[in-house]
Amino acid sequence: MESGIKINVVRNILAANNQIAAETRRDLEARHIVSVNLMSSPGAGKTAILERTLEKLQGRIPCGVIEGDIATTLDAERLIRFQAPIVQINTEPFGGDCHLSASAVRQALADLPLDGIRLLFIENVGNLVCPAEFDIGETAKVVVFSLPEGEDKPLKYPLMFRESKLCLLNKIDLAEVLGINLDRVRQNVRRVNPQIGIIPISARSGEGVDEWLLWLNKLMVS
Amino acid sequence: MESGIKINVVRNILAANNQIAAETRRDLEARHIVSVNLMSSPGAGKTAILERTLEKLQGRIPCGVIEGDIATTLDAERLIRFQAPIVQINTEPFGGDCHLSASAVRQALADLPLDGIRLLFIENVGNLVCPAEFDIGETAKVVVFSLPEGEDKPLKYPLMFRESKLCLLNKIDLAEVLGINLDRVRQNVRRVNPQIGIIPISARSGEGVDEWLLWLNKLMVS
Repeated sequence: MESGIKINVVRNILAANNQIAAETRRDLEARHIVSVNLMSSPGAGKTAILERTLEKLQGRIPCGVIEGDIATTLDAERLIRFQAPIVQINTEPFGGDCHLSASAVRQALADLPLDGIRLLFIENVGNLVCPAEFDIGETAKVVVFSLPEGEDKPLKYPLMFRESKLCLLNKIDLAEVLGINLDRVRQNVRRVNPQIGIIPISARSGEGVDEWLLWLNKLMVS
Repeated sequence: MESGIKINVVRNILAANNQIAAETRRDLEARHIVSVNLMSSPGAGKTAILERTLEKLQGRIPCGVIEGDIATTLDAERLIRFQAPIVQINTEPFGGDCHLSASAVRQALADLPLDGIRLLFIENVGNLVCPAEFDIGETAKVVVFSLPEGEDKPLKYPLMFRESKLCLLNKIDLAEVLGINLDRVRQNVRRVNPQIGIIPISARSGEGVDEWLLWLNKLMVS
């Protein structure tokens, strides 16, 4: 019975969430803002990739950022040196939510100067499970998969890879020292989502960043 | 209102969970079984540490293992070469739960030959957030924190570090190539939990494994 109640409530929460996400999607589309929901395990490199990205896009494409974290403003502080406006969401006051919800994102949007933004990055809470279950009104979901997590992770956490349009394979500069086979990683990603795009990247060395910017460009004109 | 309902249901679920966990704890204590709830992000090295541990304890201390995963039996397959009995829990049929619940563990216990077990390892779902919220009846929670995740993670995901008795700092063989300062990592861990034990370890090189076995020994006689 416990789980029966739980399933019903989860259904209601998801339905309410999806409704708010649909409103956000409509609003952002009306303003011609393209938005990317960046998801990954803790420490996979979402913020480091954003640093590289904002650096390159500065002066070219007006960006905005929503930073999702359970606690601290450490990530937002790392991005403050760029011109892009940033809003930090901390989920700790709301029970330490393990994901961003559509309503949290909608509240954050009210604090951003949307008229000046064409490309909006939403960095989700570091978690390879729960964020994939919640539509937040984004244009595309992107999963950052960090090589040190091991080749088998797409198979073990399939939903996030199924929901994403693109997989950024980060920390490829460590592939050799880790003894990781990139082809097998690609195969495992494609096994759970044959349509997904895959870009090997290193936020540290900068490798792959241009390809990622091209992908963002295509997303903006599509 | 949505969040009001949600909070009440979450409270009820946690209360039901805690009751089952208390029964498990009583049963395991009566049988003199010590249990460790191993938690971490995906790919932090829980299974690799278990491989090293079971290898060393084989023939010395009778162990059992409960493997928690959303999908696949990949982890259980890695441990099957040891003598320890293993039960795999897949949460995918139950909505892809992002954590082990007390009831899932209780069901798994029924499939283990408890009379022959003194030390029970429960490997939780890879997630640095949700598993910390659920008591599963364990003797001690242990968090595996993998260096490539970055020095700031204890501050950003504090609950798991607060709930744990021990932090295994894994993949220290990568500290140099990652340019990570171990002292700063220790400081960050202790800032959220001054009482926690910290053991640097490398499941790959074997460094720190003996200290971890000593810790387990103390837990068994305490």
